[in-house]
Amino acid sequence: MEIKYLDKIKSPTDVKKLSPKELEILCAEIRETLIDTVSQNGGHLASNLGVVELTVALHKIFNSPHDQIIWDVGHQSYTHKLLTGRYERFSTLRKEDGLSGFPRPDESRHDIFYSGHSSTSVSEAFGMACAKKINNDTSSVISVLGDGSFTGGMIYEAMNNAGRMKSRLIVILNENEMSISKNVGALAKYLAVIRSKPEYFKIKAGTENLLNKIPFIGKYIAGTILRIKTFAKNSIYGSNFFEDLGFRYMGPVDGHNLKQLCSALEGAKISKGPVLLHIHTVKGKGYDPAERLPSVYHGISRFDIDSAEPIVSGPSFSGEFGKNLCNMASVDKKICAVTAAMSIGTGLGDFSKRFANRFFDVGIAEQHAVTFAAGLSKYGMKPVFAVYSTFLQRAYDQLLHDGALQRQNLTIAVDRAGFVGEDGETHQGIYDVAFLNSIPDVTVYSPSCYDELKSDLEKAVNEYKCLTAVRYPRGSEPEGVGEYSCGGRDFAVYGDKNAKTAVVTYGRIFGNAVEAVKRFDSGNEKALLIKLNKIKPINPEILPKLLRCERVFFFEEGTLSGGVGEKVALKLLENGFKGEYKITAVPDCFVKQATVESQLKKYMLDTDGMFKILTE
Amino acid sequence: MEIKYLDKIKSPTDVKKLSPKELEILCAEIRETLIDTVSQNGGHLASNLGVVELTVALHKIFNSPHDQIIWDVGHQSYTHKLLTGRYERFSTLRKEDGLSGFPRPDESRHDIFYSGHSSTSVSEAFGMACAKKINNDTSSVISVLGDGSFTGGMIYEAMNNAGRMKSRLIVILNENEMSISKNVGALAKYLAVIRSKPEYFKIKAGTENLLNKIPFIGKYIAGTILRIKTFAKNSIYGSNFFEDLGFRYMGPVDGHNLKQLCSALEGAKISKGPVLLHIHTVKGKGYDPAERLPSVYHGISRFDIDSAEPIVSGPSFSGEFGKNLCNMASVDKKICAVTAAMSIGTGLGDFSKRFANRFFDVGIAEQHAVTFAAGLSKYGMKPVFAVYSTFLQRAYDQLLHDGALQRQNLTIAVDRAGFVGEDGETHQGIYDVAFLNSIPDVTVYSPSCYDELKSDLEKAVNEYKCLTAVRYPRGSEPEGVGEYSCGGRDFAVYGDKNAKTAVVTYGRIFGNAVEAVKRFDSGNEKALLIKLNKIKPINPEILPKLLRCERVFFFEEGTLSGGVGEKVALKLLENGFKGEYKITAVPDCFVKQATVESQLKKYMLDTDGMFKILTE
Repeated sequence: MEIKYLDKIKSPTDVKKLSPKELEILCAEIRETLIDTVSQNGGHLASNLGVVELTVALHKIFNSPHDQIIWDVGHQSYTHKLLTGRYERFSTLRKEDGLSGFPRPDESRHDIFYSGHSSTSVSEAFGMACAKKINNDTSSVISVLGDGSFTGGMIYEAMNNAGRMKSRLIVILNENEMSISKNVGALAKYLAVIRSKPEYFKIKAGTENLLNKIPFIGKYIAGTILRIKTFAKNSIYGSNFFEDLGFRYMGPVDGHNLKQLCSALEGAKISKGPVLLHIHTVKGKGYDPAERLPSVYHGISRFDIDSAEPIVSGPSFSGEFGKNLCNMASVDKKICAVTAAMSIGTGLGDFSKRFANRFFDVGIAEQHAVTFAAGLSKYGMKPVFAVYSTFLQRAYDQLLHDGALQRQNLTIAVDRAGFVGEDGETHQGIYDVAFLNSIPDVTVYSPSCYDELKSDLEKAVNEYKCLTAVRYPRGSEPEGVGEYSCGGRDFAVYGDKNAKTAVVTYGRIFGNAVEAVKRFDSGNEKALLIKLNKIKPINPEILPKLLRCERVFFFEEGTLSGGVGEKVALKLLENGFKGEYKITAVPDCFVKQATVESQLKKYMLDTDGMFKILTE
Repeated sequence: MEIKYLDKIKSPTDVKKLSPKELEILCAEIRETLIDTVSQNGGHLASNLGVVELTVALHKIFNSPHDQIIWDVGHQSYTHKLLTGRYERFSTLRKEDGLSGFPRPDESRHDIFYSGHSSTSVSEAFGMACAKKINNDTSSVISVLGDGSFTGGMIYEAMNNAGRMKSRLIVILNENEMSISKNVGALAKYLAVIRSKPEYFKIKAGTENLLNKIPFIGKYIAGTILRIKTFAKNSIYGSNFFEDLGFRYMGPVDGHNLKQLCSALEGAKISKGPVLLHIHTVKGKGYDPAERLPSVYHGISRFDIDSAEPIVSGPSFSGEFGKNLCNMASVDKKICAVTAAMSIGTGLGDFSKRFANRFFDVGIAEQHAVTFAAGLSKYGMKPVFAVYSTFLQRAYDQLLHDGALQRQNLTIAVDRAGFVGEDGETHQGIYDVAFLNSIPDVTVYSPSCYDELKSDLEKAVNEYKCLTAVRYPRGSEPEGVGEYSCGGRDFAVYGDKNAKTAVVTYGRIFGNAVEAVKRFDSGNEKALLIKLNKIKPINPEILPKLLRCERVFFFEEGTLSGGVGEKVALKLLENGFKGEYKITAVPDCFVKQATVESQLKKYMLDTDGMFKILTE
């Protein structure tokens, strides 16, 4: 397909110039570009294909960035990027120094907030709406979120707050019957019921009153009014969920019908109070494989467009975790698995089928997930909550208050711990060690190979009457590190026991440390290499081994502040260590998108970097 | 009033033996005991007076601890404690080694979860309900929460999850039109509307179907059925908010009418799926001053029963904060204040009146509060979110993702930082330094006197384009420390500049350090005393001053792990410090209830403890 319109869109102004027919062609061009680029760079496909028409309609009706469009999570903002002057750079999507796969204000003034986590957009939009009201600014602010994001409690907090204030706020709920995994909440079911009664819910009465009051009625709106005349209902008897929260409800609207979308957006634009516009889209729309398997095409690596086959990766820590947990659950009926809408990503696909009654997908609701798991545990079950490190941040208070404080068995399987690569600063798993360290009575394991993952998980589930985290990286076991398994012990010591130089590390980068030490050992000196498997609390037996060294190098794939390296520093200092000590870790900054390899290199955590630091 | 029944209640079994009339007398006895004890020990009064009948009814109808009653937050569990064998110890309420003001499983098997934070009970209860279902256990699990707790997103996450599962779960929403401050959400308004239409909502249709199916109809239920016959409605047209979330709705019920309550609880008990029972109570019921001023009598210090006058405290950090912010806001129209249902506690009472259009009480919704404030900031406002340290834990991810990462002006006023005294382990403000330290690009101030609070706050609001926290303790400025104000500088140095012993500290305990150093100085040696005002990042200029010392003592009223002391340790070690270093802080444990003085003493952070450590 030859690109005729998309390459000429330099800003949203150019979208407004196109006729309805041209807009349809534009949408097709956008879809082709999306499929093409994501097949090469990886990224979020299904969700972006679903909101092509919505994004075009938003930029036709609203005036970005004067009106702000805030994409919840932001993984679905590709079309928005294409229409806001970033078409030419789109091939750099998710690459180092390229376009982000998420909104980034430093990339464009059309991106309002840095984002990547779910369910924040209504709070952000409502904050802006309140500020606008104070400043008598009548421009619009729009939050766009999927039904997945709607399972996160923050949305409810924001809507409950906004619904009682009279600020101008538009929330677009894009129902695609699918969050990252299949949506499980009661609200998802409710939305389906709404759609099954279109005669009643189609553009509710409140909107009618509103439209009758405005002097000018656009061509899009005229048709709408006709449809709603019949269904006026004002009392609470006829209110729906969103109206109970104080929002004017509009919908459901076909999210692939540009005309309907523009009509509805015009209506929402002139409302004086908070509006919820409910649209219905098909995830993966326009690319058959993605429509059929939206979960697979949610976030995907490179894939072949024609065969539609993702380049499958081999074994991974996630996969090994899932396999181990299934094996354990098949003999222990107390083991339960909990996920916050990430059953596939965390390797729980098999578990969910084999042990359906002990598998709980609670929605994008990490707070609830931890506390719910605590409830299971209270009754004597052995819950394992599998979650990406970055999303576990959402449950810090619950880990402390509902997890650690209860002093009962609760296992957190922390996936994507460490650098995560292309998703960038919003998704790095580099804070969990620090925040888990701050919580009393928590045990943390950081296996560096599959064998340790297995034994750590078994320990966590079976031996500890406390909150225990087992954290492991995205991707697979580095080649060769399996040989160094410390087989269930808290730490392992390798290399020259009489060496004056010690290297201490844990987790994925242990493989790099092995190589760096090998290279170092080929010089005049030898080094001692200590791998920590349990990182909280640290086994004090490592101390005498370090105290006799002259130089201790600590390497940590995580934030320096609050990390393990600082704790070891204190122990050394308290015990009279007089040598040199150096931590190599992530300083006080956000880590931008790049490959994991590049990120490790940048922070001197690859083999070359480690070797350089050892020999400086 | 002579106690006739309450002293004979050794367990809930004894409640079941009493006649309806005796139960009424029991309620009166409970009220008197509550007022009496709280007037002496301080605590939560209004909310406990509100749930006397509910608690009695729960223990009459259900069989605790076989059936679990989970009190959200738990501040309203005093009657529960009185009925579960703790009457004799009730005078020790909130005292060191006494009864906790919150549920504590180590205190009684009738207390299910350690709690103190809001909105966790439905998750906990649902977790237990799922475990029961797996184990074919048909006993009940009941979550009791106020409409304040209902503004927290976790409740919604839990209900959305539970509403689609068929587990036996009873949620009792106690509407008292008041969370800690006046309730502001849309849902609160909605509940009021429900109550205004009792003919329609009184025990909904679903319940009728249920009751028709069961073979035995108790005496309480019979009356209920009559009332609901007329109002059968099954379709979604008649559903309400809670039914949209998949719950069977029952209510509203008069929460001070034992007969109605028992009837409703019997109905809820036999439901096979999740039930929401909506009751209406009067906060402070039975004690006129508390009914009139429930906010004041929510959490209160000792007060005089007859005059009903709380023993008012003088100036406080909270009060000074509020005063300063008002002064700043009166000249700078961009300054906004945000609170999560704590306007009085955080000293924002005046601000809320004087600058109503720039004051936002968002409900018990700390996550939303941070992100909402980020929205205000994005538009150019200068938001200040005032929050207790312990509740800020709920917003860790938002601080990182929606605060720090956005690189824009956002001030967090962290009240109740440090030990909080009688509320115990769930409320300690000893983690904020650690978790804020783990977030990049955050600035943290920890003033030790009112003068520093003022200048730190002004700096945070006016000078920083980043997330800035100003943290200060509960209570007032210690006597004399005002003289040591470091007047806007990052740190200040006192004492002998040539001393070989250095003391470093920050915040409230600086006053103790001054006294300890004075005592130390009267010996053979002198000490250098460094007070940090800015604790993140640490000004490196303190390093040379410490490096020339032989002994450095760091005192920290907070968790050792992730605290400032560890950071200083690393800096010293990296810079070749060869002396002794010792941190005195809170080790890896939870801190139990006692007075703040006692807590400081226990962890060697009072003057005596510091002096002892300096001279050991």
